[in-house]
Amino acid sequence: MRARELAMPYPMVSIDEDAAAAARRMATEGLPGLIVVGRDGRPWTVLPGSQVLRFVVPEYVQQDPGLARALDADSADDLCRRLIGRTVGELLPPRSALHELPVVDADATSLEIAAVMARMHSPIVAVIEGDRVLGAVTVSRLLAHLLPDAPAT
Amino acid sequence: MRARELAMPYPMVSIDEDAAAAARRMATEGLPGLIVVGRDGRPWTVLPGSQVLRFVVPEYVQQDPGLARALDADSADDLCRRLIGRTVGELLPPRSALHELPVVDADATSLEIAAVMARMHSPIVAVIEGDRVLGAVTVSRLLAHLLPDAPAT
Repeated sequence: MRARELAMPYPMVSIDEDAAAAARRMATEGLPGLIVVGRDGRPWTVLPGSQVLRFVVPEYVQQDPGLARALDADSADDLCRRLIGRTVGELLPPRSALHELPVVDADATSLEIAAVMARMHSPIVAVIEGDRVLGAVTVSRLLAHLLPDAPAT
Repeated sequence: MRARELAMPYPMVSIDEDAAAAARRMATEGLPGLIVVGRDGRPWTVLPGSQVLRFVVPEYVQQDPGLARALDADSADDLCRRLIGRTVGELLPPRSALHELPVVDADATSLEIAAVMARMHSPIVAVIEGDRVLGAVTVSRLLAHLLPDAPAT
């Protein structure tokens, strides 16, 4: 089976969209991440929820759990204010730091998708055809396809 | 809010359980991973779905997407046979390679959970109290808590 048949609709945001709204969408829809497209609609990357947290939690707090505990609830509220007025594009690491994208071509085989997920430790890959995003394949859907006895989800 | 209040029930497997059954559970329940506990019930780590793929897809195929495409569907079936007769423990990286676990104490603050997820790029952390796993916090649930306007999921 090819990626085009395995791909399911998956929420997408543009790099110009409001960062807080994107984070809220992950929260309300229970999503681990979103597919990000450029202004031209071309696939850009995947924004994992943990990357939103990397943006709002200062580096020195990430490195020091004890410090995180010492900060009070008001500080947590302050952190989320960091999202206000920001765009999705501003949450992303610099594009130069993105050595590879969790993206496969519509013709990719299930084994190619598995290789990309395995190499990138990614629970999701976007499927593209030309300049268009067809959807995404999650690791659970891929496993359902690869494991013969498991019903497809 | 503390981790004990944010934790939700989350599927767990023992390191002794059948690897194929664990992978099938991710597939049928649409899970990105499972919490792994030791024989004594103590939390061990989180098994992400991508780690199952790292086990079944040979290293040389992970590194060469062109090669992955060249292998046919029968090869994909063969790969999943690698799970037969294996335990969950055999899928995991050697414990010495686990520098840190995506695990927090029941008393951890939301900011501490955010710091762990951010540092480890993890969409989920297990919450433990003493030797017991209370459940897990997903990144979407944490964002729902941190973002004041988003309803909790």
